[in-house]
Amino acid sequence: MSDFIFGRNNVFELLKDNKRNVSKILLMRGMKENSKINQIIELAKNNSIIYQFLPKEKFYQYKEYAHQGVIAFVSPVKYLQLEEFLARKKENKKIIITDGVEDAHNLGSIIRTAVCAGFDAVIIPSRRNISINSTVEKTSAGAVNLIDIIMVNSLSSTIDKLKDNNFWIIATDMRAKDNYYDIDYCNMNFAIVMGSEKEGISATILKNADFKIKIPMLKEFDSLNVANAASIIIYETVKQSLQNPEHGV
Amino acid sequence: MSDFIFGRNNVFELLKDNKRNVSKILLMRGMKENSKINQIIELAKNNSIIYQFLPKEKFYQYKEYAHQGVIAFVSPVKYLQLEEFLARKKENKKIIITDGVEDAHNLGSIIRTAVCAGFDAVIIPSRRNISINSTVEKTSAGAVNLIDIIMVNSLSSTIDKLKDNNFWIIATDMRAKDNYYDIDYCNMNFAIVMGSEKEGISATILKNADFKIKIPMLKEFDSLNVANAASIIIYETVKQSLQNPEHGV
Repeated sequence: MSDFIFGRNNVFELLKDNKRNVSKILLMRGMKENSKINQIIELAKNNSIIYQFLPKEKFYQYKEYAHQGVIAFVSPVKYLQLEEFLARKKENKKIIITDGVEDAHNLGSIIRTAVCAGFDAVIIPSRRNISINSTVEKTSAGAVNLIDIIMVNSLSSTIDKLKDNNFWIIATDMRAKDNYYDIDYCNMNFAIVMGSEKEGISATILKNADFKIKIPMLKEFDSLNVANAASIIIYETVKQSLQNPEHGV
Repeated sequence: MSDFIFGRNNVFELLKDNKRNVSKILLMRGMKENSKINQIIELAKNNSIIYQFLPKEKFYQYKEYAHQGVIAFVSPVKYLQLEEFLARKKENKKIIITDGVEDAHNLGSIIRTAVCAGFDAVIIPSRRNISINSTVEKTSAGAVNLIDIIMVNSLSSTIDKLKDNNFWIIATDMRAKDNYYDIDYCNMNFAIVMGSEKEGISATILKNADFKIKIPMLKEFDSLNVANAASIIIYETVKQSLQNPEHGV
């Protein structure tokens, strides 16, 4: 769980102050709106902070806190906007996308490998995926501060935007025909999508991918840890770029 | 920490019964020996169970338990003897050795990848390395039961034995000149040694290795997680064996 700030006044002051990195705001669906709530929404919009209305049940886990239907998650990192990332001029951008990675250690570990491999960004969805919290930061060995991290509301529309911007989308799927080393990763912008620990990649994203790849299993035991799987694929791209220096790294 | 049984009678009964997998017995140095202690040592010897005399300070962490200077660690797996493993007839055996991996999640994760990659065994030292406990078993997703796990008292003499038995020793070291993909892993017996999270591989083992390899870093951030590093190298061997089917897998 992220570190969070709760209560209408606290969250309002947090946003007004704008000194800490707010990753997401949860609002209780159906609660009586008032001027404070409207100001919170206004500030969230102005600062491009994601906010979500969620049913009452989702707030049960915070019942010890006097949250008044408002919880803001603060993050050790400042998230970058996708548009800002895309606007940066650089050839052969390399991205890793996590689609539903729920374990903080796994996400931290993936970010750590991405930094070692010189990747440009990590994209995480705001829902059904762990956010950057202090555990992720610690497991990443500080790597969260050395790479652009982009949080998006919709992975589907993010994939579309990436494709419009000349990115190739590479999805990992154990039913894929190609092995991860059958693809030439050089001389292109690409985004590798890693699925959730339990369910893999969402069907819509899989459908939209340009390449589907798998990691071959030499034993009837199809169960690589997601961070290890990510490392294996990420380093195949490193190897290819170092072995083909005439191609863009 | 492993699951453990404490107290002279309990440990004696555990060994006499011989139904659970005892991985190691700790005995307090300087304690008054009696017939029970001698019987415990006798049974440990007869069953090839590692036992160690340790100074009193090492028992402080168990002070809540009435251990009487005797603690036995039980393991979810039955360790295999190195000699038994070496006696098995098979070509191109593949081993991973951890030299001082202390984190249960990392060890579990390494074993999981080793199983996916069709490796034959994992060797762990009995000291300065986490043993197979319930956390390792859980993180391995059950993989600890699908591969031979060998616990040894001395890694140095194990390396010597492996070399005598026609194994090539491959050590990971960030100061190495060769990248992990510069080596041909096909058509030979090999053991890949992964160092501890903090200190890497012991100097003596590094000196005895046939090959030293590194994983290249594309950013000034030399800090891959050890389980991810292991996965990257392990899967390079898989890739080579699948791409060169005429060589032995």
